[in-house]
Amino acid sequence: MRISAIKGSSFLVFFLFFVFIGRTQNQQKITYYPSNQFTMVGKIMDTQQPFHRIDTLKYTTLSSQVKTRMTRSAGLAISFKTNSNAIYAKWCTTSKSTSAGMTPIAYRGLDLYAKVDGKWQFVGVGRPSDGKNCSEDKIVANLSGVEQEYLLYLPVYSETTSLEIGVSENALIVAGEQPFKKRIVVYGSSIVQGAGASRSGMSYPARMSRNTGFHFFNLGMSGVARMEEEVATMISEIDADMFILDCIPNSSPREVTQRTQNLIKTIRKRHKEVPIVLMQGVVREIGYFDQITGEKVKKQNTNAYDEFMKLHNSGMKNIYFIFSDDFLGDDHEGTVDGTHPNDLGFDRMIKSITPQLLPIIQK
Amino acid sequence: MRISAIKGSSFLVFFLFFVFIGRTQNQQKITYYPSNQFTMVGKIMDTQQPFHRIDTLKYTTLSSQVKTRMTRSAGLAISFKTNSNAIYAKWCTTSKSTSAGMTPIAYRGLDLYAKVDGKWQFVGVGRPSDGKNCSEDKIVANLSGVEQEYLLYLPVYSETTSLEIGVSENALIVAGEQPFKKRIVVYGSSIVQGAGASRSGMSYPARMSRNTGFHFFNLGMSGVARMEEEVATMISEIDADMFILDCIPNSSPREVTQRTQNLIKTIRKRHKEVPIVLMQGVVREIGYFDQITGEKVKKQNTNAYDEFMKLHNSGMKNIYFIFSDDFLGDDHEGTVDGTHPNDLGFDRMIKSITPQLLPIIQK
Repeated sequence: MRISAIKGSSFLVFFLFFVFIGRTQNQQKITYYPSNQFTMVGKIMDTQQPFHRIDTLKYTTLSSQVKTRMTRSAGLAISFKTNSNAIYAKWCTTSKSTSAGMTPIAYRGLDLYAKVDGKWQFVGVGRPSDGKNCSEDKIVANLSGVEQEYLLYLPVYSETTSLEIGVSENALIVAGEQPFKKRIVVYGSSIVQGAGASRSGMSYPARMSRNTGFHFFNLGMSGVARMEEEVATMISEIDADMFILDCIPNSSPREVTQRTQNLIKTIRKRHKEVPIVLMQGVVREIGYFDQITGEKVKKQNTNAYDEFMKLHNSGMKNIYFIFSDDFLGDDHEGTVDGTHPNDLGFDRMIKSITPQLLPIIQK
Repeated sequence: MRISAIKGSSFLVFFLFFVFIGRTQNQQKITYYPSNQFTMVGKIMDTQQPFHRIDTLKYTTLSSQVKTRMTRSAGLAISFKTNSNAIYAKWCTTSKSTSAGMTPIAYRGLDLYAKVDGKWQFVGVGRPSDGKNCSEDKIVANLSGVEQEYLLYLPVYSETTSLEIGVSENALIVAGEQPFKKRIVVYGSSIVQGAGASRSGMSYPARMSRNTGFHFFNLGMSGVARMEEEVATMISEIDADMFILDCIPNSSPREVTQRTQNLIKTIRKRHKEVPIVLMQGVVREIGYFDQITGEKVKKQNTNAYDEFMKLHNSGMKNIYFIFSDDFLGDDHEGTVDGTHPNDLGFDRMIKSITPQLLPIIQK
């Protein structure tokens, strides 16, 4: 009898606790602010549409495929400070679904970080609605109410058409600072754009920015990073301290041979001194079984090295080459689908390339 | 002129090469075989529906939520051998979409491994159709044609209703062997079931089976691993060499206190000697910011330890406890959404628990 009495009273306490929590949350009013009141991070250049990466109205000769990719918000983030005890978001994207190898959170959701003891730490995500263009989500609640710096990453694979950040009615929210130094432009395939990362902040340029403090700008264009003349010209016009070219996976071995030198020379024409780094494409795990794919990837990477060495032997300075052999480790578990790294593969790739890149950046 | 002549002729060779490849692939006829002709791996018990994990017709008192989870094919795989130079699949699932934090490939797609030099190596995936229940996909092509052993993992989050494996018309395909030893049942939450893993073969019980050769059976039930009396009874009736209980995340701190001892005692009643391992729940990254969640997870884990110690102090043998402190590493990047590990988090968790479990299994 005594045990059951205790059970009863603790049940009452438990019940009241949840009623109380429930009321507090329901009573909390959220005020939304358009994201353009805060600091936009990751913009490669000014654009008329705030969440595009490249001004597709200026670069009219880019192919329609490239233009489409440049409307997607990969690498963009909003920097703000608030003392709110909750952070919400309302946002719209042109996509309603995802691709087979990506989470909806990465494809068309949001990813929030806060600065803790000088480091960016993951906080929570904005989950997109299923099958709808517009979403509203609580990213985090029950915060301490102390002012903190935040960085909210936009979707990597969808065009973002609007974004509002919501905080508690009486909270202060102001623009944050630009969090990263220098301008390092990473041109490449879906792997740069963020395919396979579980959230937008896990794309490798985003992770490397947080890890190093240097800004790796996302110029990933899934499937179409083919080093065309018009793209080479556009890239050469970007203001940058360094260029990383991770575009080998999207070009045929023949295109690699035909176009690599031209891309590097076009950049070098306008940027006499900046380091240019050419990376081999990540090994496609499926290529260990699919003999045609395996052979193609080998040729792409060999051809990239050959073209690089021609430039090197011709005396071009400040160019660097990164081999991809150890990008994915040795257990064959580093991809989502045999092509695109998962977060584990990206982690290994970052551990491989960061110590090769830092001395060049800090030179 | 000479260069352009060379270009012309190599273009012709290139063109003919692709025409040839194209024809070979188009001409290749695929023959499909129902998966029940091969070896089913990962079955916890016999069921009337081949791709269910628990016989929900036998265990009528399980809640409808638990029953639903038990119809999902997490941990099931098909073992076969073939010399085909291509592997296709046709399959149907009850779901047409995915959840915010999962790839469609993990949620309702397929994941193929082959045995290479005695180790299971990832080959490729079956990508589900967007918005349809039934899918057909080429998992891998251009194989060498040498006979190999394969393991095809089924979706972790959807109920699979049919599966056929397709190989080249003249290829041989036969049932494979049971690839793993012993029966280690892992009862737990969505994290056991595979939420956050990028493909079904990346769920942690599946990875640990391939890594160790011991069979970790997936009894993950997303959101509802609450140690109810009926579930405890059902678990205790499973034929097993070891039980791992990773169910703390789905129970309130109070439920952890009320139910943990009963679950372990119920299993011990029928399994006098088998090791029973209780694991703390993975730290929820969002709990570093959301103070209520942070507090709740701490209490769940402290309460689990307290209940375990009561049993230990009462003299119960062959019970073990695993602390979760280092499951996700220290960079806070190991989850998809603040709760569910991504492939990086799972990798760290596996590295933490495997050396704790192996000595118990091999005892």
